[in-house]
Amino acid sequence: MDFPVNTPKPPYIAVIFTARLTGVEMDTYGALATELLEKAATLDGFLGEEALRTDERGLTVSYWRDEASIKAWMKDAEHIAARKIGKEKWYTCFTTRVAKVERAYDFEK
Amino acid sequence: MDFPVNTPKPPYIAVIFTARLTGVEMDTYGALATELLEKAATLDGFLGEEALRTDERGLTVSYWRDEASIKAWMKDAEHIAARKIGKEKWYTCFTTRVAKVERAYDFEK
Repeated sequence: MDFPVNTPKPPYIAVIFTARLTGVEMDTYGALATELLEKAATLDGFLGEEALRTDERGLTVSYWRDEASIKAWMKDAEHIAARKIGKEKWYTCFTTRVAKVERAYDFEK
Repeated sequence: MDFPVNTPKPPYIAVIFTARLTGVEMDTYGALATELLEKAATLDGFLGEEALRTDERGLTVSYWRDEASIKAWMKDAEHIAARKIGKEKWYTCFTTRVAKVERAYDFEK
């Protein structure tokens, strides 16, 4: 996936997910994250994801066409199951922010 | 700084900065980033920053009270000089997105 993601012209929606990780079973975490991203990518309205992780921290920004596409993703059974495991096992704490992208600037050398 | 940042109730503004790094003189880059963050933190309306970096990629989300506070930061002389060096030396490409945070959810174990 491109980094930065090649998003369309605004407006669209960004979901900013900021987490502290427990560090427990992180191989499984990585595998599940990859699987979930592949699933999200099949959904109508998913525009892409930018994610970085260190041992203790995760920062993931996913982009969506509209609120309806986010809602569909939140109702996805696999995603619901993953969120439950995440709270039990991988996250010490996290904040999820939903934000409407109003403008964007690109730079390329 | 807290990770996640302890932001006030929405609405507020997120600036999402996603970059590919050249890998050149990254020690200097890290030092300047720290210096700039300290400067930003003195500004009225700066709410905090969440940033992660690997060798080749950077993802930084800063939070601001309103458009006026972002505008003041964009006019800061030190920040202007740093952006110029960044384009010359450190960034292969980047995208900056300005987004209005409409809602947020916290989880803590």
